Amino acid sequence: MIDRFALNQATTKHWPLDELVAGCAEAGVRAVGLWREDVQEYGVPKAAALVHDAGLAVSSLCRGGFFNQPDWYDENRRALDEAAALGAPTLVLVSGGLPADSRDVDAARAHVGDAIGRLVPHALEVGVRLAIEPLHPMFCSDRCVVSTLGQALDLAEPYPAAAVGVCVDTYHLWWDDRVWAQIERAGRAERIAAFQLADWLTPLPEGVLLGRGLPGTGCIELGRFAEAVAATGYDGFVEVEVFHAEVWARPGAEVLAEAIAGYRACVPAGRS
Amino acid sequence: MIDRFALNQATTKHWPLDELVAGCAEAGVRAVGLWREDVQEYGVPKAAALVHDAGLAVSSLCRGGFFNQPDWYDENRRALDEAAALGAPTLVLVSGGLPADSRDVDAARAHVGDAIGRLVPHALEVGVRLAIEPLHPMFCSDRCVVSTLGQALDLAEPYPAAAVGVCVDTYHLWWDDRVWAQIERAGRAERIAAFQLADWLTPLPEGVLLGRGLPGTGCIELGRFAEAVAATGYDGFVEVEVFHAEVWARPGAEVLAEAIAGYRACVPAGRS
Repeated sequence: MIDRFALNQATTKHWPLDELVAGCAEAGVRAVGLWREDVQEYGVPKAAALVHDAGLAVSSLCRGGFFNQPDWYDENRRALDEAAALGAPTLVLVSGGLPADSRDVDAARAHVGDAIGRLVPHALEVGVRLAIEPLHPMFCSDRCVVSTLGQALDLAEPYPAAAVGVCVDTYHLWWDDRVWAQIERAGRAERIAAFQLADWLTPLPEGVLLGRGLPGTGCIELGRFAEAVAATGYDGFVEVEVFHAEVWARPGAEVLAEAIAGYRACVPAGRS
Repeated sequence: MIDRFALNQATTKHWPLDELVAGCAEAGVRAVGLWREDVQEYGVPKAAALVHDAGLAVSSLCRGGFFNQPDWYDENRRALDEAAALGAPTLVLVSGGLPADSRDVDAARAHVGDAIGRLVPHALEVGVRLAIEPLHPMFCSDRCVVSTLGQALDLAEPYPAAAVGVCVDTYHLWWDDRVWAQIERAGRAERIAAFQLADWLTPLPEGVLLGRGLPGTGCIELGRFAEAVAATGYDGFVEVEVFHAEVWARPGAEVLAEAIAGYRACVPAGRS
């Protein structure tokens, strides 16, 4: 029943990696999405061994991107290498906001496309796919100038689908009436590299980063997303990825159980 | 030089209406955008007399909408009547978020269109235009399911342009790469009923409502918006509408002076 569920590590931020891995294995979970900072702290080869010895796959590594930073090229190459070392098929890209003192969002978006193009050869070389993640438009200035799935697909289009895909995250895309057509388009082009579930809670907290809720606690039609993504033929992992201070304060195993329950309630029966 | 500048009353929330009107007249401002609550508190006929005796026009009345509330029909008819009494040509609509316990954003959007259709006869009768305002997608759940200028224009399309237009607000629309084409479309269809300037500040405050900055203090290409709107032939008022606790805490006349300076810096020379 939970063959395709994956726990994104950010959901249980304070759960130490070894306990998280043991907890996932015990719960019958088959994959985890990892974060670079946490993996680096633990040690990349040691983390790779820990996860694989427990029989878990790595669904994705978060995150590359931030192409508005001066060191983006070297940093993203390192991120690709880390993903390869972990056996993660996908590096999720949060592309960065406007450069300092810039108001030119068109130029920033064009730069994201160019930067991804420069990373394609290394991505193909190490066998890790870059997944452009559109972030909610409220993050456009400071985190990600890619705001819609349509933009992400336009940016991916010049490059081979084996090297560049997109990340479909319900939290960032639910408001967009064009998202259903864009999910179909992504499927046709075989661009869906990651699918992440989180729910929308109102009111938003200060800074708006930590407003993501566990599946089922908010107002998003998650089942409709799961159906739409499944209808494209996507059969990869479905990560639950939530950032929320109150969720983080709770025991990891308890949060994991709720994440699984939320996933089960919205992923189409027979397709999980 | 400031013939087309208008001060939206929300920018100087705590400036009493009589002082605001006197301050605007003294500064050479020709129009004010008013808010229902403030006008009701002062008294509608008394407010109308105050504003007109000072030689000011009313650029718009904020706001109707909230079609997810049970009393939306009567409430919006009253709002239209108040706008007519004030001589406001336009009633700005904040269409409301999802109904309680609903996740059906498509149905909520369709209902907005139906509700506006029901108000059209009264709008034509009293000579006040309904202006559908798309709000930033971060308000989709709780304030306004109309998230893009394209959606607003689609909703307006079945009705006469004399009865239903749109409100172009830079704060809500700057992230959207399709907004330039939609401004052109709005112009061709003679749907631009209001144009509001506010800047985007990061980080967002809790609840995200009070993050709007005075023109020039944030990252929006306001000049590009002013050019695009002017290029359609729009020659109505340009309201500065900012919600920000620190702005509200300052003396009204000082904020007004900065709003005018911000307007002058971004509205094309010769078109002001």
